[in-house]
Amino acid sequence: MRFERRIAFFFIFILALSVPAALSSGGQAAGKADDAVLLKLVREDFGRLPPVIAAANNPVTPAKIALGKMLFYETRFSGDGTVSCVRCHPFSLYGADGLRRSVGAGGKPAARNAPTVLNAAGQISAHWVGNRKDVEDQATQSLIGNASPGAPSADAATKELQKIAAYGPLFRDAFPGEKDPVNAVNYGRAVGAFERTLVTPSAFDAFLDGNVKALADAQKAGLARFIETGCVQCHSGVYVGGQTYEMFGVHEPYWTYTKSPDVDEGRFTVTKNPDDKYVFKVPGLRNVAMTPPYFHDGSVARLSDAVWIMGKVQLGLSLAAPQVESIVAFLASLTGEIPSEALRVPILPRRD
Amino acid sequence: MRFERRIAFFFIFILALSVPAALSSGGQAAGKADDAVLLKLVREDFGRLPPVIAAANNPVTPAKIALGKMLFYETRFSGDGTVSCVRCHPFSLYGADGLRRSVGAGGKPAARNAPTVLNAAGQISAHWVGNRKDVEDQATQSLIGNASPGAPSADAATKELQKIAAYGPLFRDAFPGEKDPVNAVNYGRAVGAFERTLVTPSAFDAFLDGNVKALADAQKAGLARFIETGCVQCHSGVYVGGQTYEMFGVHEPYWTYTKSPDVDEGRFTVTKNPDDKYVFKVPGLRNVAMTPPYFHDGSVARLSDAVWIMGKVQLGLSLAAPQVESIVAFLASLTGEIPSEALRVPILPRRD
Repeated sequence: MRFERRIAFFFIFILALSVPAALSSGGQAAGKADDAVLLKLVREDFGRLPPVIAAANNPVTPAKIALGKMLFYETRFSGDGTVSCVRCHPFSLYGADGLRRSVGAGGKPAARNAPTVLNAAGQISAHWVGNRKDVEDQATQSLIGNASPGAPSADAATKELQKIAAYGPLFRDAFPGEKDPVNAVNYGRAVGAFERTLVTPSAFDAFLDGNVKALADAQKAGLARFIETGCVQCHSGVYVGGQTYEMFGVHEPYWTYTKSPDVDEGRFTVTKNPDDKYVFKVPGLRNVAMTPPYFHDGSVARLSDAVWIMGKVQLGLSLAAPQVESIVAFLASLTGEIPSEALRVPILPRRD
Repeated sequence: MRFERRIAFFFIFILALSVPAALSSGGQAAGKADDAVLLKLVREDFGRLPPVIAAANNPVTPAKIALGKMLFYETRFSGDGTVSCVRCHPFSLYGADGLRRSVGAGGKPAARNAPTVLNAAGQISAHWVGNRKDVEDQATQSLIGNASPGAPSADAATKELQKIAAYGPLFRDAFPGEKDPVNAVNYGRAVGAFERTLVTPSAFDAFLDGNVKALADAQKAGLARFIETGCVQCHSGVYVGGQTYEMFGVHEPYWTYTKSPDVDEGRFTVTKNPDDKYVFKVPGLRNVAMTPPYFHDGSVARLSDAVWIMGKVQLGLSLAAPQVESIVAFLASLTGEIPSEALRVPILPRRD
């Protein structure tokens, strides 16, 4: 850690302790100065959400978004006709499904907990172990995945889509100039384009913008605590995580404290590199308060327990209850607003 | 049939034949007179949708609608955590699921095809065989039904709801004065109240209101044909059906022409009265063009085939293709607009 950062952490630690004191003594001037220090540090570690999560390889166009939203709800190519993206990512539950592990077509369970689709496009990869390149790849591969629509094959799914004649012009508008645009890769591109609009600005973004009143004092103290404790070492950036792979269980095996039904070797299952054993993608923490249960296996139901376990196995700390509560208060400020257009159910074309 | 009706049917039959002729000869005055005759007859047989489908035993209040909409999306009491009302009644597919038979918690199939939830509250009962008194009863019983949320028991579902603390005040607002309002019966009342708002006025209602241009000429001809052919004998009223139980297969067994995998004894399975063998509730035809597949077992995929089969087995007629097409053109005018508020996904409270 650079010296300047150490100094900053010291100040911020003092801040975390002093905010309540300053308030109880009515110290408005002190509060303002503290806010400025906190804001400066926070801006070094985090970033404001963009309006849309752009991608060079999949330009986001209105036609693609509109089609992608329809396909996000489309069940009619699913193996048992019941599963669309919405099954595991309903917006009513903030883009996750509340289950330890999702259940897909034919009742088949997913390998791991379904992360929220909100802001997911900004992460380094998709899925807990990074076995999907990006949201587009995730969508395309999900067509035939287990706990996904579960079509017999991408071709079979494509054929079902082609049977719904009205999709033809919509795919042509979204992918102009392509000869046979109705296919599994473009399904993924359209769904991906829609997902790139699923950005949820929150009070935290308003704070980053300079509106220091956007966070309650308890949330500011929690934010300082989040940085000082070391959570920020992995959970930083625009998405408060989602940019790196890390060992889950640095100080102790993760399953010492979780209620995991089995041991997951994590990214090792993808790379077969022994260094990747028990390594997972660091989840982005935006909307984390709304998307229990927690961890790759959804083995922990309460956010406060998840925070305590992270302190224990990642940082070797036994966080006291008030420290955990403080961090949880900050995390609530990451609950954002789902775009209004995403919350409007699309009407799908009839299959003739 | 009353004498006046016979005369009227004669006129309307002439009308069905004459509309194209009148148009091709540029007969605007004749067209106006025909419109007036058709409108008069149609108003005798049908009715305009109300803004809300009221019920004396379940007054529709804003608090109840709002709670009901949330519960319509609620999966967390479901047997496998994946099923809410939306599973079988997604608005993206006009309140039905496009399957022959729905698939519920644990992959269990429903006994029959899921009818649309749109305008369903106006029917004589719920389900194809009338084994649910009304939409409230249907919702409450679905909690533990097979192809429904599939909770182990109503009590178990209630307990899961009670775990989501934020529902407490919402149930208290919806059911003021009740001591323990969070229960399975009130779940049904709230969902039912929401369903009572799922009313979809269409071009047909505008026509009934006197706007004779609301229907295309082909639709008017189809409407006349629908009446003249005899479809209206069962499919009449505000909901274009849904008010009576009738034998499916008056002239020949229904399975002569459907692709039914097995023979369903219909309402006999409920009443055990031999007169009820193969008797089903007459479905309301509003939005029928958007809710394939057809019949109690979803055994027919195309609306035109369903119309032809109805002519054959109910009326003993072999409708020619242009006659079928004409009726199908009218049926499209029953596709209405889903209330905007219903299309907006509700955010559900967190389970702490």
